[in-house]
Amino acid sequence: MITVLFSARPELWDDYRDLLTEALAAEGLDARLTRESDPAEVDYIVFAPNGPVTDLAPYVNTKLVMGLWAGVEQIVDNETLTQPLARMVDPALTQGMVEWVTGHTMRHHLDLDAHVKGQDGVWRNMDYPPLAQDRPVTILGLGELGTACGQALAGLGFPVTGWSRSQKSVEGIRCLSGEDGLVAALTQAQIVILLLPQTPQTENTLDADALALLAPGAFVINPGRGPLIDDAGLLAALDSGQVAAATLDVFREEPLPADDPYWAHPKVTVTPHIASTTRAKTASTVVAQNIARVEAGKTALHLVDRRAGY
Amino acid sequence: MITVLFSARPELWDDYRDLLTEALAAEGLDARLTRESDPAEVDYIVFAPNGPVTDLAPYVNTKLVMGLWAGVEQIVDNETLTQPLARMVDPALTQGMVEWVTGHTMRHHLDLDAHVKGQDGVWRNMDYPPLAQDRPVTILGLGELGTACGQALAGLGFPVTGWSRSQKSVEGIRCLSGEDGLVAALTQAQIVILLLPQTPQTENTLDADALALLAPGAFVINPGRGPLIDDAGLLAALDSGQVAAATLDVFREEPLPADDPYWAHPKVTVTPHIASTTRAKTASTVVAQNIARVEAGKTALHLVDRRAGY
Repeated sequence: MITVLFSARPELWDDYRDLLTEALAAEGLDARLTRESDPAEVDYIVFAPNGPVTDLAPYVNTKLVMGLWAGVEQIVDNETLTQPLARMVDPALTQGMVEWVTGHTMRHHLDLDAHVKGQDGVWRNMDYPPLAQDRPVTILGLGELGTACGQALAGLGFPVTGWSRSQKSVEGIRCLSGEDGLVAALTQAQIVILLLPQTPQTENTLDADALALLAPGAFVINPGRGPLIDDAGLLAALDSGQVAAATLDVFREEPLPADDPYWAHPKVTVTPHIASTTRAKTASTVVAQNIARVEAGKTALHLVDRRAGY
Repeated sequence: MITVLFSARPELWDDYRDLLTEALAAEGLDARLTRESDPAEVDYIVFAPNGPVTDLAPYVNTKLVMGLWAGVEQIVDNETLTQPLARMVDPALTQGMVEWVTGHTMRHHLDLDAHVKGQDGVWRNMDYPPLAQDRPVTILGLGELGTACGQALAGLGFPVTGWSRSQKSVEGIRCLSGEDGLVAALTQAQIVILLLPQTPQTENTLDADALALLAPGAFVINPGRGPLIDDAGLLAALDSGQVAAATLDVFREEPLPADDPYWAHPKVTVTPHIASTTRAKTASTVVAQNIARVEAGKTALHLVDRRAGY
């Protein structure tokens, strides 16, 4: 009998209790899923921020801590964490992100807002937008999410450049890395999508200098993490027209305060951190499969490199 | 020396004169492109509505009439037309349509308008939309455009059903045909996209009975032709909530009159027949290649079946 401790805010327990119990059974695991246990008896921890566990030191026999979110910035710096840490790679979360990114990319590409907001009874002759093939898109971050989004957009015809800290190779995407690669990736990009992890190194990746490299009138889409953007720099670029519009799902402070200038800015669309989410059914399967791997003596999937921070 | 007569409104001549001349030369054709000619000397006609040629009877030596638009309803019933007629299959027109349909499908799927219109400073907890895999899409019409759009949406994860008069087989799309097939295609569809040709048979395809088959709260997207929809039926379905929203690019009367109820309806987005258009550069190549085929003794591509009307 293995013990799986679920540490997350109480609403999530309602979502996961049955589905995770079923998923553990489906993997043939003789497991006890609980929200309370003697720490020494816990074999695995399913972790999300704002749950009861903050000090991981007593969990001396725990073989793996599994985050429920794709981002791990709220646990990776926890100094009491000595156990291996896995991030969530939920196929439904990835798919949801692909859909959200595709939707907002097409929205900006086709200027759908002009029609949504402009139902004034005037039939206008309009210029056609360029085809996707003439609209270069750059994705910062080529993890699970960035890679999947980039491939979806490439499939729709966009020329996609992807940038990551370490060099990657992804079919259909021009992959760049390093400082020089970042400059090349941003230069003349018409749509920039941020899907980098939040680390000290990625903070303010999109600052005034970076924004100045984009094609005039570019679009910025941030479903990644708020600190990736220098907010003052983005606001200035929006006001100058260097950036035509931004859709922002994540912020340094969430919920975004009602008096934040992003809310009122006519070129900014704020969405309330809803780009995508872990879905309990598929995530339960991922958690159960990862436990089964470790129980079978294999290395866990999706382990976090704590020095890199993701 | 072959003579190619260009009959369209004058603005199009500016777009096509150089590009079509170059395309004819690129095919190795010794051709004269003109807007005026003794009809008996004309070998090919490039045709768009509202040009000078309306009586085709004098063009006794013309081997092929080539429309510049995907829809041919403005010439197919011309009783003076005895020459073979080809519709335009322009890869750029197809791609533009794929992009427009994908954009509006994602817009409705993700309810982007709620965010675009709702920038009120309130951070709301929102329900996540279903994933694309749980959002059945039906495309009426499996010609060049319907097929390409259906495959793009299937590639994004939507379960796509396509319906056409005659049975087709398209990879990734559930293909249905005939009267029973239409009922099956519409039943419980959550998004319906109209890309049928305009013929007497397709008029009012989406009438009150058809709309009643859809899933409650479905979305209707019409980039095809206005008469495919029974307007009174659609307005009633919007008012009852059976249809949650409609995006309409084509109408029985264009420009859509300013007092048309579609303009003011809160659930309707009118776009001014801009879903996609023939692009002169690629279309010129298509025209020149089709002429070269005929000159080489081959059958022209994209011939219209005049009895079917498309």
